Amino acid sequence: MTDRRQLANAIRFLSMDAVQRANSGHPGMPMGMADIAEVLFNDYLKHNPANPQWWDRDRFVVSNGHGSMLLYSVLHLSGYGVSLDDLKNFRQLHSPTPGHPEYGEAPGVETTTGPLGQGLANGVGMALAEKLLAARFNTDDLTLVDHTTWVFAGDGCLMEGISHEACSLAGTLGLGKLVVFYDDNGISIDGEVEGWFTDDTPARFRAYGWQVIEAVDGHDPVTIDEAIRTARSNPRQPTLICCKTTIGFGSPGKAGTAATHGAPLGDDEIAATREALDWPHAPFEVPDEIRSGWDARAAGQEREQQWQATWRSYRESRPEQAGEFERRMNNDLPEDFEDRFVEALMAMQADDSKVATRKASTMALETMAKALPEMLGGSADLTGSNNTNWSGSIDVNDDPARGNYIYYGVREFGMTAMANGLALHGGFIPYTGTFLVFSDYARNAVRMSALIPTGAIHVYTHDSIGLGEDGPTHQPIEHLASLRLIPNLEVWRPCDKVETLAAWGAAVARRNGPTALVLTRQGLPHQDRTEDQVVDIVRGGYVLRDPEQGQPQALIMASGSEVSLAMDAAEILDAEGVHVRVVSMPNPDFFEAQDPRYRDTVLPPSLTARVAVEAGVTRYWRPLVGDAGRVIGIDHFGASAPAEQLFAEFGLTAGAVASAVRELIGAG
Amino acid sequence: MTDRRQLANAIRFLSMDAVQRANSGHPGMPMGMADIAEVLFNDYLKHNPANPQWWDRDRFVVSNGHGSMLLYSVLHLSGYGVSLDDLKNFRQLHSPTPGHPEYGEAPGVETTTGPLGQGLANGVGMALAEKLLAARFNTDDLTLVDHTTWVFAGDGCLMEGISHEACSLAGTLGLGKLVVFYDDNGISIDGEVEGWFTDDTPARFRAYGWQVIEAVDGHDPVTIDEAIRTARSNPRQPTLICCKTTIGFGSPGKAGTAATHGAPLGDDEIAATREALDWPHAPFEVPDEIRSGWDARAAGQEREQQWQATWRSYRESRPEQAGEFERRMNNDLPEDFEDRFVEALMAMQADDSKVATRKASTMALETMAKALPEMLGGSADLTGSNNTNWSGSIDVNDDPARGNYIYYGVREFGMTAMANGLALHGGFIPYTGTFLVFSDYARNAVRMSALIPTGAIHVYTHDSIGLGEDGPTHQPIEHLASLRLIPNLEVWRPCDKVETLAAWGAAVARRNGPTALVLTRQGLPHQDRTEDQVVDIVRGGYVLRDPEQGQPQALIMASGSEVSLAMDAAEILDAEGVHVRVVSMPNPDFFEAQDPRYRDTVLPPSLTARVAVEAGVTRYWRPLVGDAGRVIGIDHFGASAPAEQLFAEFGLTAGAVASAVRELIGAG
Repeated sequence: MTDRRQLANAIRFLSMDAVQRANSGHPGMPMGMADIAEVLFNDYLKHNPANPQWWDRDRFVVSNGHGSMLLYSVLHLSGYGVSLDDLKNFRQLHSPTPGHPEYGEAPGVETTTGPLGQGLANGVGMALAEKLLAARFNTDDLTLVDHTTWVFAGDGCLMEGISHEACSLAGTLGLGKLVVFYDDNGISIDGEVEGWFTDDTPARFRAYGWQVIEAVDGHDPVTIDEAIRTARSNPRQPTLICCKTTIGFGSPGKAGTAATHGAPLGDDEIAATREALDWPHAPFEVPDEIRSGWDARAAGQEREQQWQATWRSYRESRPEQAGEFERRMNNDLPEDFEDRFVEALMAMQADDSKVATRKASTMALETMAKALPEMLGGSADLTGSNNTNWSGSIDVNDDPARGNYIYYGVREFGMTAMANGLALHGGFIPYTGTFLVFSDYARNAVRMSALIPTGAIHVYTHDSIGLGEDGPTHQPIEHLASLRLIPNLEVWRPCDKVETLAAWGAAVARRNGPTALVLTRQGLPHQDRTEDQVVDIVRGGYVLRDPEQGQPQALIMASGSEVSLAMDAAEILDAEGVHVRVVSMPNPDFFEAQDPRYRDTVLPPSLTARVAVEAGVTRYWRPLVGDAGRVIGIDHFGASAPAEQLFAEFGLTAGAVASAVRELIGAG
Repeated sequence: MTDRRQLANAIRFLSMDAVQRANSGHPGMPMGMADIAEVLFNDYLKHNPANPQWWDRDRFVVSNGHGSMLLYSVLHLSGYGVSLDDLKNFRQLHSPTPGHPEYGEAPGVETTTGPLGQGLANGVGMALAEKLLAARFNTDDLTLVDHTTWVFAGDGCLMEGISHEACSLAGTLGLGKLVVFYDDNGISIDGEVEGWFTDDTPARFRAYGWQVIEAVDGHDPVTIDEAIRTARSNPRQPTLICCKTTIGFGSPGKAGTAATHGAPLGDDEIAATREALDWPHAPFEVPDEIRSGWDARAAGQEREQQWQATWRSYRESRPEQAGEFERRMNNDLPEDFEDRFVEALMAMQADDSKVATRKASTMALETMAKALPEMLGGSADLTGSNNTNWSGSIDVNDDPARGNYIYYGVREFGMTAMANGLALHGGFIPYTGTFLVFSDYARNAVRMSALIPTGAIHVYTHDSIGLGEDGPTHQPIEHLASLRLIPNLEVWRPCDKVETLAAWGAAVARRNGPTALVLTRQGLPHQDRTEDQVVDIVRGGYVLRDPEQGQPQALIMASGSEVSLAMDAAEILDAEGVHVRVVSMPNPDFFEAQDPRYRDTVLPPSLTARVAVEAGVTRYWRPLVGDAGRVIGIDHFGASAPAEQLFAEFGLTAGAVASAVRELIGAG
């Protein structure tokens, strides 16, 4: 057997050389964690390089994602479709080896990391997915789901608050198949961490209920191996393996310093490192015996074949469960789902009750979730306010096999990144819940759900000053517009229960990107619609009301709670003989992405007397109303008072909207 | 002496009755923490109700801000200018007693809380401010600065990730005058926390290097008193006092349940509680003997008078240091600051070197910080990238008396909320640093800096795809526009070193609101300007270039790195005989707030052929270019590649801008 150190050195030199060639990147972490990765990949990781989508593979997450070259190196060495040329094109345009690992670029990359701490939280989500799927699908004789989630994390990940949120909850959830390697190298970008990070990390994680293995020599394969065995022998607790490592291990002049973290070592230092580590090979040259020491293809194929045999037996003996498993892992909806959904939507239209859209959201869940056992909800300690639960909700702690609800605690960021991990693992449609204003706490994880992308659904209630007395700390003003600005995030703000159900339907159907559902605290009236109008909701914007006679002289557009206000303004104007169209815009971005003909039907270019109204910042709506139009909204913080008073105080009234219309058309 | 329980009950009934009257609010926490507040206020808190701005007062922060009625009650009872009517108007429009405590509304409210965990981090900032000011100004014989920061925090605060960030750093910083009372009532909104929060919190905080006092009976004044003594006897470590309490203490039917958390108890239950606690008084009626047990006015006056005597001696014996202390605590700049600043600005204009604006930022610091010892910088572990340090930077750990730089570690959210606390305490102009994309991690604390407001300055570098190879996880797209949407936050994105210095000047001068400085990684050319143009920078937008002859046929506006690109486009067009104006817009919001005459001079209404260019989402600029205009930007995520390639790949080139202009004016 080849010397293990030399196997690990392959990672070191591929990383050093690729960073040098790219003239940017992070060699320090790959050099420091190479020995750990070597033991993990060569002795423990359950995977098949030929099928990176194998459902029962172990998940490997590099939360300290700047160490991307470690990941690309081990994927290349173990036989994934990552070529030497890919490594040589590290950080170049259109290469599958970007500066930080991006899901969907290179095979074997399980999530997109770089923003520190989030990979760790993704890993917690993945481990939870495994636990729940195992509980649901494994039988006494057939083990369909049985894999480990391995996470590499650095000091930065552990300083970030999200590590507290996710790891605290991982302890409570008892995720015994989660193993985190802490790269305890004592260095972060600003230098030796002792000036800013003096936690007793083992004690901290024990306080979370984790098994902690301390003081492991991260350069000694024997000790690493022992630690992994101990980790795997404990099915009740997640394990933190604290590995003492040297950042930039092997570099005679720079090892152990921040200089190795985020810059090429330089040709001279790399030459010195070749000398020091006895690696006489040219850049990107890996000797055959090293390659064969890494090659995981044959073993991987065999491992997956064993599993495929189990899967065949499972399909034969339990065809229905197998069908559900397969459907869920493939992210498919049940075949009759859409037909039944449309039926439900039309039935909802026939019911004219007034409810808050957060309550309509529960009604939507009642309609859909029975048919979708993959829907896995939760809230950051606002279940009764977000209405994220429904009559079939079961706490995953109480019954992992049937559980479909997570009490996340007050952990918005951790929750959202966990939801990304749940979605990435497969088998679930995760949805989260908090107040819209606290989307801020989770904002980068929401962005990551759009960038990765995952099909996570973010439920945000209490969406404006309409929440009333809790005041400006809780009243979103800029949030709706800010979320809409995140590329690839669909944001729906429905105006009544029919639009709420339609938005939920769009969110569930969108399995290749995230959706935010923005909902009211306060009750909203039901709107009348024809069947065609109901169908048009999912276009993001549609004509909700036209004058009974004559062409519209003006147009009012609105979203959510302001749609009924727009309708009231139209009534006022109608009585004065002013003909007004009302356009409901639950998702303006999506409306703007419709074909121009449809858009012009809804917003005729000649109809320039336009008023938009939304209880949030005005700027977002300007392009829709045009230079001649007006936007009525709120460009300052809210206040603490009953909601109706706030709408009046801030000029968000039907009267104000009617006045704006009159001014625009020169009437009154 | 009046029975202590009855003193505490005054808080309970004022809270219960005010919540009932408002028909919304949170009685549970005030009822649970009343006994702790009673001991703290009546036996320990150093304050003078007649002067809530007394510089050497203790700071009291209610991080679980939904318990606002506890704060309003104790402020009222101890003699602050919070009247019974104010309590009766809890949560009503224009009352100083909003649903969550808001700084600037009622006297004695030290910060705005409600978004969980942030008050705790504010407290860490306040305690650090105290420590640094004490080290700088106290002398062997005169103690000018010597006060404690007391924080109330709940389960929610401790679940939030920010509690990890702030408390970990507080331990490292050894903030011995920070005392946190943990309201360990075992209940959060979703119910008993054991399903989602099972941390061994004492062990966790010991791991941070805190002194922890466990298992204190939060309803027993003697034990609370002992705990406070122990806390105060330890000058080296912050202290966590873990108080076992009963949420809604005293309510026979609801105590100990989530039902008391966020809703009125109801008239019947309040009546039953009156019975149970032997409180026969009408709502809002507090017997005289209870009032006199609380009245802190005489003692407070005496305490401040003692301090005033010290202050007089200090002023006599050390007039210069006293002057600096007074100036800093009053948030004044040195008298000659502005003149010297304008001189420096003009000198900077005379230097035509090309530098990245993040480097220009260091040059600005070199110019200003020598004269401003109150500038207290820091970075979330990106010092060398954010360039937040300068030649005079001294680590606060190395020398608290002269320290002006904080190594925050990888803790963006904690850093930002600490900066808010530093600013609120007084004596400092805090500035923070991270990459623009990670403003997301801190976003709600940035919002809070605008809502409170504080004069914190947020330095965000690596502001676009111009950062290159780190890729889309690190490339801001929507961030600039999203930050501009936060009310009351000034966002500057300078185009060269002169605009950078001007922006820093505006930020430092703005002591009543926060500023974000958005800076490039890459070098940017110097722009020529007349003296008038230099002066106009702080208007947020100004004409940087006009055609040498004739009226402009078109106008290009841009910010930051895209200004030079706009200038290049103008050159291209000039050579073709197309006359173009270039407007630099380092702060479009601020420009839009200028008087209309100035705005029309810069953007003549008749000049409708307008192109805006910025390496971020386009929507923000639409109102500025109007219906006839064009915006060139990026409405999708970035990519990992060298920066120049990305600008070309995404169509952000002078050629593309010139083409857009040609199309608009029908030329070419």
